[in-house]
Amino acid sequence: MKKRAVTACVLIIGNEILSGRTQDTNLNHIALTIGSWGIQVREVRVIPDVEEVIITAVNEARTRFDYLFTTGGIGPTHDDITTDCIAGAFGVDLVESPEIAAIIQQRPAPPTVMKARMRMARIPAGATLIDNPTGGPQGFRIENVFVMAGIPTVMRAMLSSLEGKLESGPVVRSRSVTAYLGESQIAAALSTIQLNHPEIDLGSYPFFKNDRYGTSLVMRGTDESALETMLEEVKAAIVAAGETPEDVPQG
Amino acid sequence: MKKRAVTACVLIIGNEILSGRTQDTNLNHIALTIGSWGIQVREVRVIPDVEEVIITAVNEARTRFDYLFTTGGIGPTHDDITTDCIAGAFGVDLVESPEIAAIIQQRPAPPTVMKARMRMARIPAGATLIDNPTGGPQGFRIENVFVMAGIPTVMRAMLSSLEGKLESGPVVRSRSVTAYLGESQIAAALSTIQLNHPEIDLGSYPFFKNDRYGTSLVMRGTDESALETMLEEVKAAIVAAGETPEDVPQG
Repeated sequence: MKKRAVTACVLIIGNEILSGRTQDTNLNHIALTIGSWGIQVREVRVIPDVEEVIITAVNEARTRFDYLFTTGGIGPTHDDITTDCIAGAFGVDLVESPEIAAIIQQRPAPPTVMKARMRMARIPAGATLIDNPTGGPQGFRIENVFVMAGIPTVMRAMLSSLEGKLESGPVVRSRSVTAYLGESQIAAALSTIQLNHPEIDLGSYPFFKNDRYGTSLVMRGTDESALETMLEEVKAAIVAAGETPEDVPQG
Repeated sequence: MKKRAVTACVLIIGNEILSGRTQDTNLNHIALTIGSWGIQVREVRVIPDVEEVIITAVNEARTRFDYLFTTGGIGPTHDDITTDCIAGAFGVDLVESPEIAAIIQQRPAPPTVMKARMRMARIPAGATLIDNPTGGPQGFRIENVFVMAGIPTVMRAMLSSLEGKLESGPVVRSRSVTAYLGESQIAAALSTIQLNHPEIDLGSYPFFKNDRYGTSLVMRGTDESALETMLEEVKAAIVAAGETPEDVPQG
């Protein structure tokens, strides 16, 4: 039986991304990582640190997709409101996690500092922990929602700890080839090839390099032999247009 | 009278961003650019090249925000479906733009190639053009929706041509200061400062540099004197925590 696709939404929570102050790199890492596990990112939203916006987005995404991954807003300061919002979205109380509290309390601190840190020990009732291999406080999972830190090194560590623990579907593989020709020169042939292989997604991406226009053709799908067939057809179309296909290492 | 905030949503359309093949940089550029014009990006969505997903997202965003900017999917190949979807979202037909057609026809080409290129001359009925200073086919505007190319150089050129032509609100300014201390060491003070200045958004962002943990404090708001007041209070809190505030060039 064919495995069904497993889908995910990524919710990037943080004013610093929306304002342009910080260039997000988490989306790209999450997409590549969970993609390799057989989970397809189908939508991403970047939203501000605003309670009602976060709650609405969480509740929409967790029902529309198999999994929801959030990044950002789980630190110890006043602007870290993600945990509260996730509890709000699920209509549950916050509880203190003894495991996170133990990690936090390993490092001594004055009472006001400890109080701030202990904010990170709060999780929604019913949540389980996501390991944090960097040694800091854990993230958490509640139902199909995974709540992770926004700092890329910490997010990556948390995500890595989930490998092998999630439901997965077929892995989307890709083939790519480039050629120094304009998209229009090959558009008609690509259209025909796409129609003949509806199960493979054929994307055409123009670029400008070495003072020349070129096009990257990217094929994505779960059927390796269909990918190979399409790749040969695309290469033939490039040759027919008078150019030389250049292979790209396969993904 | 206080100017009202003018808000925007950015819709990044493209399987290549969702798959992780391409790292998006358009969001960051759009946020910084229109931010400097007095338009605040309040939400971003990254969505696939799927007709019903695009139409739904466009119709949601154009009613919730003052402006919607889209990137991607307006080229000459079969996977460029943004223009069709925008027309679908507005319930209007596609028409051929004589101005875009003229630009396309400047460069001669065989009939099949020209036919593909002319796909880019189609715009929704009622749309007006967005200049393309790179010399290629234009983007278009329909009501409060701005449809631009996905290639960063082309998107940037199109966006630059809109400067001074849009409604704008107060510009959000920022002040930043960093210190080599953990967020928890200053969390209580930050919370008090934020409560005392609800009109300024105070964000705390941890970092790890030169083998030390540090925190960036970023203040954002439209009132310069309130920003300066908060900046002094944040600096005083850093000193009170036993560290030295380091100024960051102001934005």
